[in-house]
This record gives sequence, C-alpha cells and structure tokens, in this order.
Amino acid sequence: MKIGIIGATGKAGQAIYREAEKRNHDVTAIVRSSEKARELFGDNVKMIKKDVFTLNQADLSGFDYIVDAFASPKAYEHLDLAGKLIRMFRENEETTLFFILGAASLNDDNGKRYLDTILANYADQPWIATPLQQAHEYDYLQWIDNVKWTAISPQETFNVGPATGYVMGEESIMKNSEGKSTVTTGNVAKAVVDEIESPTHLNKRFTVVDQ
Amino acid sequence: MKIGIIGATGKAGQAIYREAEKRNHDVTAIVRSSEKARELFGDNVKMIKKDVFTLNQADLSGFDYIVDAFASPKAYEHLDLAGKLIRMFRENEETTLFFILGAASLNDDNGKRYLDTILANYADQPWIATPLQQAHEYDYLQWIDNVKWTAISPQETFNVGPATGYVMGEESIMKNSEGKSTVTTGNVAKAVVDEIESPTHLNKRFTVVDQ
Repeated sequence: MKIGIIGATGKAGQAIYREAEKRNHDVTAIVRSSEKARELFGDNVKMIKKDVFTLNQADLSGFDYIVDAFASPKAYEHLDLAGKLIRMFRENEETTLFFILGAASLNDDNGKRYLDTILANYADQPWIATPLQQAHEYDYLQWIDNVKWTAISPQETFNVGPATGYVMGEESIMKNSEGKSTVTTGNVAKAVVDEIESPTHLNKRFTVVDQ
Repeated sequence: MKIGIIGATGKAGQAIYREAEKRNHDVTAIVRSSEKARELFGDNVKMIKKDVFTLNQADLSGFDYIVDAFASPKAYEHLDLAGKLIRMFRENEETTLFFILGAASLNDDNGKRYLDTILANYADQPWIATPLQQAHEYDYLQWIDNVKWTAISPQETFNVGPATGYVMGEESIMKNSEGKSTVTTGNVAKAVVDEIESPTHLNKRFTVVDQ
C-alpha cells in the first residue's frame, strides 16, 4: 500500500511510520521538518516537506491511505486539518483518510462521554482544548458519508512503547488485564497497519487497548 | 462598512446585496458568474469572480464582513465552505463572518429540532441533504470561539419578497401575525444589515420572522 503519514515525526506518527515500513508498505512522511524526519527514519526517507495547511491535491494524490497523525499546540488545528482533508477527498474513491483521534470521544463506564468527565474536572486547564477539539473532530467525521475515512482512538493513557498485542473495541474506554485504560504507540501502530491491510472500519472509529 | 457577499446572485445574496448597497455600504459581490452579477447589479458592480473553494487570504482581506450566502446543489459544500472560511479567519480580529443558514437547526414548538421532524417525515427525499448539512454547519459554528462570526436562520418558508418589518428570535421557529413560520428575503436582508450596523449576536445565531 502507498501510505502518506501527516505528522510522521510525532508520537503516534513515528510508531505508525516504523510499523508500516517494517511491513513493506510504500511510506511517505508528510512533515514540517525534513531534518527531524531524516534523523528518525534515515537519509532515504520518502518525504513531503510542507506546512500541512498548504498541502494541495497534487501533493496527496495517488495514496491508498493518508494517515492524519498531526499534532499542533493550536488545538483547533486538529479540526481544521480534518476539514481540509475531507474537503480535498470529497467523492474520492481511491484514497482512505485515517484519523488518529484522542480518547475523549470514547464513552466511559457509565456510558457518558469521557470528554464530559474531564470537562467537569479540568475545564479551566489549558490542555483541555486538545481533547475538546479532537472530540469535535470525531463528531465532524460522523457527518461525512462521501469520503472513505476511518479513525482510531487510543486510551486514557497513550505512551510510547512496543507492540505487545491489543484488544479492539468500538465506542468505549477499555481496560487491559490490569484494569488500566492504557495503550502503547506500538499497539496503536499495529492496529492502524492491520486496519490498512484488512479494513473493517470504513467510515467508523475504533479503539484498542493493550492486552 | 466593507462587505463581501459570497453567493450575491442567489436568493438570499441578492436581497442582502441590494439592502447593503441601498444603505451605502461598500459592497463586493463574490460570484462565479460575472454576467449574472452585472445583469442583476449593473455594470459598475464590484466583484470577485472566483470559485469559492479557490478564494485565498488576499481575496478576502480588508472586509469588515464576509456574508456567506453560498448555495450549492452539492449540499455538503455548505459545510465545506464554512470550514474553509473559519480556517481562513482563525484568530482574525478584523473581519466578521456572517453565515446564512437554514431553518432546520431551529427548535420547533416542542423544543425539538425542526431537522428531526423533517428527517422523520422526509429522510428519503434528495432535498433533505441541504437542511441536514446546514444544521451540521450550525453545530460546527458553535465549536468556534476564536473567529468573529454571526449567523441567521430564516423560517420554514423563505420566499422572495420585500422588507415589510421583522420580529427577531434566537433558537426557535417563530410565527407571523397569521400564525405562519415565514420570512421574506427582504426582511432577512434588512435583519442582516441591521446586525452588521449594530452587532448584537457575535458568535451566536439568531432568526427573524415577518411581522
């Protein structure tokens, strides 16, 4: 598969890049910093070096998958980039957009959105903007029915770590064998590449937890 | 005020153009067809002739208000254009975006969304896509807190007609003196230019009904 990864040098993007490369996909890093990409992935890394908001149709044509693992300190840019990508791929049958979301749009044990719980406790924290905007991003995606998209949410804890095996879910926070809602970047990357190789969540979001 | 009107040759756009011009604002028609604009507004009409999705920062800079009266047979383009405009004006303090929405996002007498009522009755009709996407557009706008925007919804019936006087509301379907949810293009145009001259609905939607 020909896979473009927006934000390939970020936490999730790096792991997805490495997993896809290991499984012999044709991977392109779509990044702001070519130095960082070379440092991480070697001098032969295939790259589009561009501010994401200046990407055009020609830049993104010919991919089977575009993975949006973009992260920005301006939280609203998560939503803006989703909107830009959806607009670019309206009525496109060739490319699937794969969005890496946050955990806030998952439901908790009470069937309430995890976002509501963290808003109730941390509404005045500056970091709240990111889970809020990523939840908006998922709400927005659910309106989109003429673009091929899929999305994955990690768990409450999403740390750098190896692929050790995952369990898959759909709309709710999950727990590992120790009762913790936690998933590694390696397991998310494995789940992303598994979905790319055998898609089962077209126009749906799913989630994974460490085994 | 310097006002740009996207879709100035359309049903709502025409009325807003004429009302703003009559009240001596500096109006620019942002249109696809220069012929139609000249035919409607005369040879001296100020114009930006461009496909809306190719408008750039330079095209839209320097306006006090950009009115989005765009209409497209591809209903999802209402949402796409809103997203594009919001992205262009993030953290911009100079320009206010004024969105002309539909009535479907208003609440009916039972406090339910009018959209739900029409979806329950007409879900299989092709025209349903427009009220659905315009309701999404309003949901989307409510997430936006770092762009100056305002929005107006007409009523269930929105026909071409003169400005005869209007009554203003916020979130609910309204009725005229004859018990009908109806508003003319003239009254909507009057309400739009009134709001531009004395803003009272920054980052809010309002509605008007014929007196």
